Amino acid sequence: MRITALAGGIGGSRFLRGLLRAVPDAEVTVIGNTADDITLHGLHVSPDLDTVMYTLGDGIEESQGWGRSGETFAVAEELAAYGAEAQWFTLGDRDLATHLLRTQMLGAGYPLSAVTEALCDRWRPGVRLLPMTDDRVETHVVVPADGDGDGPAEKAIHFQEWWVRLHAEVPARRIVLVGADQAVPAPGVLDAISAADVILLPPSNPVVSIGPILAVPDVRDAVKAAAAPVVGLSPIIGGSPVRGMADAALKAIGVPTTAAGVAELFADLLDGWLVDTVDADAVQQIEAAGVRCIAVPLWMTDPDAAAAMSRAALDLAEEVRAR
Amino acid sequence: MRITALAGGIGGSRFLRGLLRAVPDAEVTVIGNTADDITLHGLHVSPDLDTVMYTLGDGIEESQGWGRSGETFAVAEELAAYGAEAQWFTLGDRDLATHLLRTQMLGAGYPLSAVTEALCDRWRPGVRLLPMTDDRVETHVVVPADGDGDGPAEKAIHFQEWWVRLHAEVPARRIVLVGADQAVPAPGVLDAISAADVILLPPSNPVVSIGPILAVPDVRDAVKAAAAPVVGLSPIIGGSPVRGMADAALKAIGVPTTAAGVAELFADLLDGWLVDTVDADAVQQIEAAGVRCIAVPLWMTDPDAAAAMSRAALDLAEEVRAR
Repeated sequence: MRITALAGGIGGSRFLRGLLRAVPDAEVTVIGNTADDITLHGLHVSPDLDTVMYTLGDGIEESQGWGRSGETFAVAEELAAYGAEAQWFTLGDRDLATHLLRTQMLGAGYPLSAVTEALCDRWRPGVRLLPMTDDRVETHVVVPADGDGDGPAEKAIHFQEWWVRLHAEVPARRIVLVGADQAVPAPGVLDAISAADVILLPPSNPVVSIGPILAVPDVRDAVKAAAAPVVGLSPIIGGSPVRGMADAALKAIGVPTTAAGVAELFADLLDGWLVDTVDADAVQQIEAAGVRCIAVPLWMTDPDAAAAMSRAALDLAEEVRAR
Repeated sequence: MRITALAGGIGGSRFLRGLLRAVPDAEVTVIGNTADDITLHGLHVSPDLDTVMYTLGDGIEESQGWGRSGETFAVAEELAAYGAEAQWFTLGDRDLATHLLRTQMLGAGYPLSAVTEALCDRWRPGVRLLPMTDDRVETHVVVPADGDGDGPAEKAIHFQEWWVRLHAEVPARRIVLVGADQAVPAPGVLDAISAADVILLPPSNPVVSIGPILAVPDVRDAVKAAAAPVVGLSPIIGGSPVRGMADAALKAIGVPTTAAGVAELFADLLDGWLVDTVDADAVQQIEAAGVRCIAVPLWMTDPDAAAAMSRAALDLAEEVRAR
């Protein structure tokens, strides 16, 4: 079975770990979000790709869901002693080695997809991990220039600055995917979508993780045109994001923070949608939009729970395929 | 008193620390060797500049004379786990922060001299540290291609590869200063030489530390033309280098590993030359070459010993100035 998943960081990675546990023989391709990528201290950091790679390669710091296990911070402490910029984004020493190699390879002319493949040679994540594009796409967030949210003046800041430095506490007026309209899907991306037996949308942030992947020209159309059933899992449970600050991002694009709201955002793509049991009352509304929906437990408390969720997603894919 | 010193790494730095102890009110400019610089994992490493900066800024690992005190190696271990190249040159985590900032600033267009000044803002070495040039100059060593030293085929390798990876055990046939003929002295270098009251050549490697500085166009001529007395200290004691493998480098340029041999190498520049007391019998030979020479203890066993050496050098400078 060929499964293609569109994934962000923590939620996507934990779901994928469950998926590999549920169907170890499946041929899984992961199209990773790169719009969170940021250059820090001259290093190209790809947080979402790395979270997938580390999680599936057994190198993740489990307690936080991102970064390397057993991490140390000697370099970051030194950068602080130098008064370096961007101290709000702390790079661990182990993690930094990944960024060093990535930056060096990119500088030597390799595209990000080739770099990602080289890094995965070490981690052996058990999936084929593709960046959504080899081109530079960056999520920027338009916020009030004065910080208090009232003035007409605005400024655009990098998503990471809004998310990590400002904890998404400053209201986002708009989200802009810089470079997305000029980007080209990375080699293998469109093929992985068209050749898939099942296409999955894990419970990743719909706006800043899944959104940018679908914003790469031809990707959304490829998902729509794919013969495979498209099944997604709600990242919103009971009106709150499972983790992270997806509500702040949804608010910026005027989508309600509900399982049904996100389903509607993807309704043109979805054949099936899983909501948590607490959102069972949304099933009818979602099905009215033409999306087959069932309610199952969606808390990824451990890899087994994630495996059960992926089984439910694959079962739903079989059901909608049979129709 | 304005003192200008031409310095390599460990020997130069330890001498300079003694100099600052001996004459704390002196205005000291250090022209540092950058021909040992190497790009590793995409980072611009300036070993000699950093050794001066760390030694005088109290950040040096005293036991080895280079690198940062309290160093850790998480990044290097990770790079090894990735199978990265150039593992023979281990970069410590703390040290790496320096290279990250340097590389980032160079990438942003700042010349190495401006970068060095910015880094010194943190370390406050008590001297003005200038790279010999902002241009790329690299010491390469021509070695037998087959490794055993007999065949006619040759190859040129970076100095650090010869020094650190091969421990200078492969015979050097020639030493080539790539880029030296096109280099321009960094801002302030020629002025520091012409305006000095005393010019010092610390006991640094004469071939690969002092040599490259003097090979930058106009630098050797400026030292020759300077009104200030030029006094050097022998890095060779009793026929052996004080530390390092200076003998292997001297052999490559056909200079005997003796206090007199090195004095002769710099004879056109020197007004005074200090040899160790065990080399007292060389004094007459050196003076015959027109260089005032005295024998004093030259083992830098501690900062006080280095301070005594610098006092002896400054005394000798006063003596030759008076003549």
